[in-house]
Amino acid sequence: MAEQKKIGVIGLGSMGYGIATSIHRTGHTVWGFDVAAGQVEKFIAAGGKTGNLADEARHFDIAVVVVLNAPQTEAVLFGENGFVSNMKPGTAIVSCATVAPQFARTMAERCKQFGVFYLDASISGGSIKAGEGRLSVMASGSPEAFQTAQPALDAMAETVFELGDDVGDGSAMKAVNQLLAGVHIASMAEALTFGITQGIAPEKIVEVISQCAGTSWMFENRAPHVVTGDYTPHSAIDIWPKDLGIVLDVARGAKFSAPLTAAAMQQFLAASGSGLGHEDDAAVAKVYARNADITLPGEK
Amino acid sequence: MAEQKKIGVIGLGSMGYGIATSIHRTGHTVWGFDVAAGQVEKFIAAGGKTGNLADEARHFDIAVVVVLNAPQTEAVLFGENGFVSNMKPGTAIVSCATVAPQFARTMAERCKQFGVFYLDASISGGSIKAGEGRLSVMASGSPEAFQTAQPALDAMAETVFELGDDVGDGSAMKAVNQLLAGVHIASMAEALTFGITQGIAPEKIVEVISQCAGTSWMFENRAPHVVTGDYTPHSAIDIWPKDLGIVLDVARGAKFSAPLTAAAMQQFLAASGSGLGHEDDAAVAKVYARNADITLPGEK
Repeated sequence: MAEQKKIGVIGLGSMGYGIATSIHRTGHTVWGFDVAAGQVEKFIAAGGKTGNLADEARHFDIAVVVVLNAPQTEAVLFGENGFVSNMKPGTAIVSCATVAPQFARTMAERCKQFGVFYLDASISGGSIKAGEGRLSVMASGSPEAFQTAQPALDAMAETVFELGDDVGDGSAMKAVNQLLAGVHIASMAEALTFGITQGIAPEKIVEVISQCAGTSWMFENRAPHVVTGDYTPHSAIDIWPKDLGIVLDVARGAKFSAPLTAAAMQQFLAASGSGLGHEDDAAVAKVYARNADITLPGEK
Repeated sequence: MAEQKKIGVIGLGSMGYGIATSIHRTGHTVWGFDVAAGQVEKFIAAGGKTGNLADEARHFDIAVVVVLNAPQTEAVLFGENGFVSNMKPGTAIVSCATVAPQFARTMAERCKQFGVFYLDASISGGSIKAGEGRLSVMASGSPEAFQTAQPALDAMAETVFELGDDVGDGSAMKAVNQLLAGVHIASMAEALTFGITQGIAPEKIVEVISQCAGTSWMFENRAPHVVTGDYTPHSAIDIWPKDLGIVLDVARGAKFSAPLTAAAMQQFLAASGSGLGHEDDAAVAKVYARNADITLPGEK
C-alpha cells in the first residue's frame, strides 16, 4: 500500500463511521471523533484512535469532516474547540457536508490563513457504500489540496469527480445533484400515487415505468420501497428540507426561480411536519396518499 | 410471415407515418389516411393504398388510429365521416393517442355497439422508433382485442406492455409516464440552468450527473440538446401543455393534488407562450435562462 498517513475523521454518523472504517482498513492511522460517545467507543473497538480533537489535530496529515451541515462544519473547524489552528501547514481538510458554495469558499479562505489546504468534497452514495470505501465525491480545490488529500480520497471513494480548482464548485455540483434527486423522489411519489387513483397496481407501474422514458435513478431505487411498504430509512425524509433548503437558499441568492424544487420542498416539509421525518424519504408518498385518501401497500 | 392482414392507419404524422410504413414493410396491405395530402402521397409512393376512409373501412381487419388527441380520435371514429360503423364485427381498433382513461372507456363502449374490439394502446418511443417498428405500447383491452390487433402490434412495437383487460389502464399508465417524463425534462432544465448560475459548465454537469443519483432517462436524453444548443424538435415543447394537461385534468377529476406536475406545466406553458412551442422540449431551459439572465450554449 501507499505511505501510511495520520488521518482524523470528525463526525462518526452513518456516513462518517463508514468513511473512518474504510480509511482504517486501508492501513492508515485513524482518529475518530463524535459527540455521541457510543460511536467513538465502537470505532475504538474496531481499532481506531480518539482523544481531544484540538490536541490530536497536530498529528493529522488529513482531516475528513463529515458533520451534518454548514454550522457544524464551521464549529468543528473554527469554533470554541476548533482544530484547524492546530493543524500543521501543508496538511488538508476534506470537507464532506452538503453546504452552499459560498460557505465552502469562506472556509477555504480561513484555512489558508493557517497554511491548511481545503478540499470542497461533497459525498454521495449512502452509508453502505461509505462502509465499503466506494463513495462518489464531487471535489474542487487547489492541486495541492487534491494531492495532500489523495490518500483519504483513495480509501473512501470509488469515483472522485475532479471539478477544478475553484472551491465551491464541488458544493455547487452537489446542489445540482440534490435538486434533481429531491425532485425525482417527489415525482416518483406523485406518479405512483396518481397511478393508484386510476386503479393501476403500484408494482405494475414500477415494472413498466422502469423500462420507459419516465424512469429515473431515484424512481428505480425508491419506488420499490413504496411497493413493499418498507420505509426503513436508508436516506431519511429530513435530509430533504435541509438539502433542498440549501439549493433554494443558493438559488434565491442568485435570483434563480426554481419552481419544481420549491414544489418538492413543500412535499418534504409536509412529510417532516406530519411526523415522517425519520422514515425513508420514499415516505413522501404518504403525503400524497393522505391528500388523495388512498391506501398505500403495507398501510392499514 | 404470419397471415397477411388488411390494416388502415389513420393519421400519417411523424408517428403514424412510421407506423404505417413499418406495418407495410412486414407484408400486410396498408391503407393510409391523413388530412395532409402530401403525407398520403408519400405513403402511396412507398407502396401504400388510400381512398375514402369510411368506404375503405369495410375491408379492414385492424384500424390503427394515430391522431393527436381525444377530440380527433372521436371525430375519426364516430364523427361526420366516422368509419367505425363501416368496420366488420370482430375487427379491432388500435387507439394510440394519449387520452384520459375515461375517454378510452367511452370509445370502447361505443365500438362495442358495432361489434368492434377496442385496444387502448398508448405509444411511446418517438418517430425514429416508429419508423423502425420498435415502439413501446402500453395496452389494455379484452383478450379478443389483443388477439385481433396482434398483427399490427407485432409490426409496430418492440415492447407491448399488456396491462390487462380494463380499457383505460393503457391510457392511465401512459399518463403516469408522461407525468414523470414532463417533470424530469423540466427538472433537467431547472438543474442545468441553476448550475450555470453557480459557474459550473453545463457539459460538466451532464458528465457528472449522468453517473450520479440525480440522473434520469430524460436528463441523459435531453440535457445534451441544451449543451450543444441544438433544439431541432425530436419531441416538441407543445407536446407538454397537451399531455400534462391530460394528467392534470385526470388528477383534478380524482381530486389528486399534483404540485410538481402543475409546476412543470407552468414552465412548458411559458415556453410555448413565448414562441418556443415548435422547438425541442429541452428548450424549456430557455425559460429558466431568460428568468435568470444567463446565456445558454449556442445563444447570442
